[in-house]
Amino acid sequence: MKLLRVGTKGTERPALLDSEGVLRDLSGIVQDIDGALLADDAALGRVRAAAESGTLPALDAAGLRIGPPLARIGKIVCIGLNYHDHARETGAEPPAEPVIFFKAADTVVGPHDTVLIPRGSVKTDWEVELAVVVGRTARYLESAEEGLAHVAGYAVAHDVSEREFQIERGGTWDKGKNCETFNPLGPWLVTADEIADPQDLSLRLWVNGELKQDGTTAEQIFAVGEVVRYVSQFMTLYPGDVINTGTPAGVALGAPDPKPFLRGGDVVELEISGLGRQRQEFAVA
Amino acid sequence: MKLLRVGTKGTERPALLDSEGVLRDLSGIVQDIDGALLADDAALGRVRAAAESGTLPALDAAGLRIGPPLARIGKIVCIGLNYHDHARETGAEPPAEPVIFFKAADTVVGPHDTVLIPRGSVKTDWEVELAVVVGRTARYLESAEEGLAHVAGYAVAHDVSEREFQIERGGTWDKGKNCETFNPLGPWLVTADEIADPQDLSLRLWVNGELKQDGTTAEQIFAVGEVVRYVSQFMTLYPGDVINTGTPAGVALGAPDPKPFLRGGDVVELEISGLGRQRQEFAVA
Repeated sequence: MKLLRVGTKGTERPALLDSEGVLRDLSGIVQDIDGALLADDAALGRVRAAAESGTLPALDAAGLRIGPPLARIGKIVCIGLNYHDHARETGAEPPAEPVIFFKAADTVVGPHDTVLIPRGSVKTDWEVELAVVVGRTARYLESAEEGLAHVAGYAVAHDVSEREFQIERGGTWDKGKNCETFNPLGPWLVTADEIADPQDLSLRLWVNGELKQDGTTAEQIFAVGEVVRYVSQFMTLYPGDVINTGTPAGVALGAPDPKPFLRGGDVVELEISGLGRQRQEFAVA
Repeated sequence: MKLLRVGTKGTERPALLDSEGVLRDLSGIVQDIDGALLADDAALGRVRAAAESGTLPALDAAGLRIGPPLARIGKIVCIGLNYHDHARETGAEPPAEPVIFFKAADTVVGPHDTVLIPRGSVKTDWEVELAVVVGRTARYLESAEEGLAHVAGYAVAHDVSEREFQIERGGTWDKGKNCETFNPLGPWLVTADEIADPQDLSLRLWVNGELKQDGTTAEQIFAVGEVVRYVSQFMTLYPGDVINTGTPAGVALGAPDPKPFLRGGDVVELEISGLGRQRQEFAVA
C-alpha cells in the first residue's frame, strides 16, 4: 500500500493511493498514519481490506498539499557514508561499522514544501536517501533478517545538509543536519510487502533539471536489515522511528571546486523507484 | 514553581511541590506538563494562582513514583565539553564554539527509575547536568539575554554515556548517548523565576555514596543564555525541547586507569542546588 497524508500543515488527513492511482480518504478508518498504526496488524488489515473492497471515498487531488506520510515521528537515526560511491567521492574510507548521527523529527516537512537555506549558509547540500520506517520495537536484534522483519515500510527522504555547520564548526555532524525544514519526507509511505528487494532500488536527484545523483541501493555498504540490527544494539527503535540510510555519490560536497552548493531559488527534484518523487524550491530563511 | 509528574510510567499526572513541601495535584487545572503548557502564559498563571490560593488537593507522596517532569519532549540538544574543569580532565582543548550532539526523547526516564547498562558495555559513565527547558520558539536569537528569555525552567539531567560506543565505534558521539533509559530527568521542572542565576548552581554526583562530581555552573564555558542563542542559529528550538548543558569534572572517563565505569548494582545519586536530587540503581539490560 501507498499511504500518505494530505492537507494543510498540522491538519493532514490519512489517505491511500490505490492501484489505479486514485487518491482515497482513510480518515473514516484510521485516525492518522503513525507508529501506533504501523504496529497494529489488525488496523493495517482493515486498511488493506477497505482498499481492496474499492469502497473508500475518492479525494480530489487537485491543489491538495501532500504532507509527510508519517505523523508523530519518534527519532530519525541517520547512517553516514553508507554508499561505496559516496565514500569515494568525499575522499573518506568506507567505515568499518555504520556511522550514526541524528536529525530531529521537527525538521520533517512534506515532499513538495519549501526548504529554507539557513541564514549565513554558503554550503547547503542535497542528499537523496532511502528512509526506513520502523514498525515493531527493535532491541538487540540478532540478524539482518530480524532487522528487515521490523521494517514497516519505505519512503523517499531528502537529508538536506549544511556542510560548513556539519564539518567546520566543531562537534558532531548533527550541527549541519538539523536546520528547520531539512528533512522532506514522502510522498508515500510504501509498505514493506510492496518492495521486493530494498537493495535493488534506484535513486535519482536533479538540481534545476540537471541530474546530479544517479545511484542504487545495491551500492549500500550496510544493507537495510543489517542497519536495523546494528542500530538496535545501541538504542531501542520504536514504531514510528525512521532511519535515513545514507546517500549515493553526486552531492555538491563531492564536486570539484567551486562546489555547486544550493542557493535561494534553486529547485531540487528527487525520486526512488517505487517510492515516488519530491520537488522542493529552496528559499533563504 | 516546582512542577512534576507522578504515577506509573505512561500514566503520570501533573503535580506541584508547594512552598511547604506538600505535593499538590494539578490534574484538575492542566492536562499535563508539556511544551504547550510552558508556552501558555495564561495557563501557567492559573497554575500559579491555584498554588498561591492553597486550595489544590494534597497528594499522598508515599510510594508514589516520580516520572520525568516534562511530557512530549521534542528534541534533546546536548552541549559537549562545556565545563573548563571537564575539558581539562579529558585532555581536550576547550572548544572555540559549543559542541552539539543529540539524545532522543525516548531515552528519558524518571529521576529514580532503574538505568540499564547496555549489553556488552564495559564503559558506562555518569554525567550530572543542568537541563534547560525551552518555553518559547527560539530561532536566530541575537543575544544571550534573548536566549535566557526563552527558557521556561530548569531540571537535573543525568546524561548517561557509554564511552566505547561514543568514542571508539566510529561516527558521532550520538552512538554512546542514546541507549534506553540513558536520560533520567527531574524530579522537578523548576520555573525560571525561581533560579536567580543559572551560572551559580552547584552540581554534585555520588557513586555508591562516594562523591565523584562537585562542580558549579560558574565553570561553564558557554553560559545558558549564550547556549540557547547559539543553538538557535543552527536549528529552531520549540517549547518542550530540552538542552543538556554539559557536565563538570569528575566522570569515570577522566579518572586514572583502571577507570571506575559503572556496573550492575551500582547506585548513582546526583543533585543540583534548588533543583532536587536523583537516585538510580544500575542494572544490566
